[in-house]
Amino acid sequence: MTNNWMHKLKQVTIVGTGLLGGSIGLGLRAAGYRGRVVGVGRRKSTLEAARQRGCIDEGVTDLPHAAAEAGLIILATPLQNFPELLEQIAASGTSAVVTDVGSTKVQVCRDARRLLGEKQRFIGSHPMAGGEKQGPQHAQAQLLRGAPCIVTPEDGADGEALALIEQFWSALGMHVMRMAPQEHDHLAARISHLPHAVAVLLVAVAEKSGGLSIASTGFADTTRVASGDAAVWLDIFITNRQPIVAAIDEFAHELAHFRKMLAESDDAGLLDRLTRSKQVRDQWVVGSG
Amino acid sequence: MTNNWMHKLKQVTIVGTGLLGGSIGLGLRAAGYRGRVVGVGRRKSTLEAARQRGCIDEGVTDLPHAAAEAGLIILATPLQNFPELLEQIAASGTSAVVTDVGSTKVQVCRDARRLLGEKQRFIGSHPMAGGEKQGPQHAQAQLLRGAPCIVTPEDGADGEALALIEQFWSALGMHVMRMAPQEHDHLAARISHLPHAVAVLLVAVAEKSGGLSIASTGFADTTRVASGDAAVWLDIFITNRQPIVAAIDEFAHELAHFRKMLAESDDAGLLDRLTRSKQVRDQWVVGSG
Repeated sequence: MTNNWMHKLKQVTIVGTGLLGGSIGLGLRAAGYRGRVVGVGRRKSTLEAARQRGCIDEGVTDLPHAAAEAGLIILATPLQNFPELLEQIAASGTSAVVTDVGSTKVQVCRDARRLLGEKQRFIGSHPMAGGEKQGPQHAQAQLLRGAPCIVTPEDGADGEALALIEQFWSALGMHVMRMAPQEHDHLAARISHLPHAVAVLLVAVAEKSGGLSIASTGFADTTRVASGDAAVWLDIFITNRQPIVAAIDEFAHELAHFRKMLAESDDAGLLDRLTRSKQVRDQWVVGSG
Repeated sequence: MTNNWMHKLKQVTIVGTGLLGGSIGLGLRAAGYRGRVVGVGRRKSTLEAARQRGCIDEGVTDLPHAAAEAGLIILATPLQNFPELLEQIAASGTSAVVTDVGSTKVQVCRDARRLLGEKQRFIGSHPMAGGEKQGPQHAQAQLLRGAPCIVTPEDGADGEALALIEQFWSALGMHVMRMAPQEHDHLAARISHLPHAVAVLLVAVAEKSGGLSIASTGFADTTRVASGDAAVWLDIFITNRQPIVAAIDEFAHELAHFRKMLAESDDAGLLDRLTRSKQVRDQWVVGSG
C-alpha cells in the first residue's frame, strides 16, 4: 500500500546530484522504484559521476524540461539557489509535487508559495543526514536509512502532495516527523544552528590563545561541525536569522549563569548543571541509538 | 640512553588503577620496563581487575608502604584526592619522584610544594588521553601512544626529576611538551574546559527547547564531552576557576560579536568568521593528524 505512489510516478527529478541528491537517487532504487530518475545540474562532470554511480538514469542541465515531465521534483542544491529554481519550475508549467532538502524551512516555504503560485504543490522537507565527504561519488542509500526527516506542510497544504512526500521519505528508510515550518526553524536553531555558531567561536577563542597544539580529542569533537562548508552555513544563518539570534540569547543567559556560579564558588550549583546535562544527553543517546 | 632510567627504578607505584592508571602500567610493560609495578587503590575489585589485565604486578590499599619503596609515584586518581594522597606520601618519608595525571596543574603543584616540603621532587604532568569507557578492563598501552603529554615543572624544579618524568612519558610513546603550570591552565581553560562548559550548556538549551528528538550527528559530536563524569569535571572547574572565568568572558565577547553581525545582516562578516574558523580547524586537523 505505501508503495502505491511509486507506480503513479513516471519520473522523479532531482535538482542537485551531490552527496544528498545522489543518495536520494540510490535510495529510490534500493526501495524498488522503477520509474525514471533524472538529475539536473550545472556541471556535466557531476551529473556524469552521479549517473555512473547509479544515482540517476540521466543527467541534464535543462531544468524546465526535466521539471515539466516529472511527477516529483526534489531540490537538493544549496539554499541560495532555491528562488531561481522555483521560478524555473513555475515557468515550466509542471503539475509535479515539489519538495526540497534545505536546512531551514520558513523562507523556502514562503518563496515556494510566492513563486509557484496558487496551484503550488510544494511541501518542505529536511532530511537530517549528511557526511563530511561531498559529491555523488560518496552517495549511498544507507546515508538516509534511520535518520530523521522533518516534513513541514503549511496550513492548507495539499493533502495528496503531503501524503506522497511522507511516503517517499519513509520508503527511503527515514524516520518522518511532521511539524510547521516555524516550529522546525525554532528547534533547528537550538539543536543545530546554535551549536554550529558555538563551535565556530570556540575555534576563534582557541586560535587566539595560541594553544591549539595541545588540543585533543575533546576539542576535535566539540568543534567538528566548524569544518563544514562556510557558504552552506552562511545560507543557513541568513535564512533563519531571528530564531538563531533568539537561541544565542538563551545560550548567553545560560553561560552568564554558569559563569556566576563558577566565579562565586556555587559548586553545588555547578555540579547540578554538570549532572543534569550528563543525564539528559545520556538518555538522548540511548533513546536515539 | 633514554631508557637508562628504567634500570634505576626498582618500583613504580601507580595510585589509582582506572583507565589511565591501568594504561600507564601496560605502557610501562610495552616499553620494556622490568621492575615492579604496584597499584594502589581503595577497592580491591578494581586492583584485582588491573592485575588480571597485566596493568600491575600487585595491588595494595596501603599507600604509605607502597610509596616508601617506590622510585616513581604517579597519582592517577581524581583531582580531589590529591591533597590527602600527597600528605600520605610525605609521611612515608619516600625519596621517590612524584608526578600526577591531573587536568589542571597550578593547584596540584602548589599543594605538592606545601605538602611534600623542601625536599620535594614533584613534577606535574597532564597526559592528554582518555576514553569514554572507564576502568582498568579498558586500559591499553595504545591509549597513550601519540597523544600529547604536558609536563609542568615549577621554577627551580629538580633537574633530575624533570628528566626522569619527561623520559618516562616519552618511553610510553607520548608527545611531551614542557610549560609552566600557569601557562598550562590558561591554555587548557581555552581548549578543553571552556569547550566542556559550552557543551554542557548547549544540552541545557536543547533540553528546554523540547527539540532533542530531532537532534542528529552534529549535536552528538558538539556535546559529546558533556557525557563525561560530572564529579571529575567539577574538580577541574573548581581547581581552575579564574582562568575558566576569563575564557568564558572571551567566548562571550565573540558570541556577542557574532550575534551583532547576524542581527544586523553583516553577512560578509559572518562569512569571514565561518571561513576563518574552518581554515584554522582544517589546518589543525592536518597538523595534529
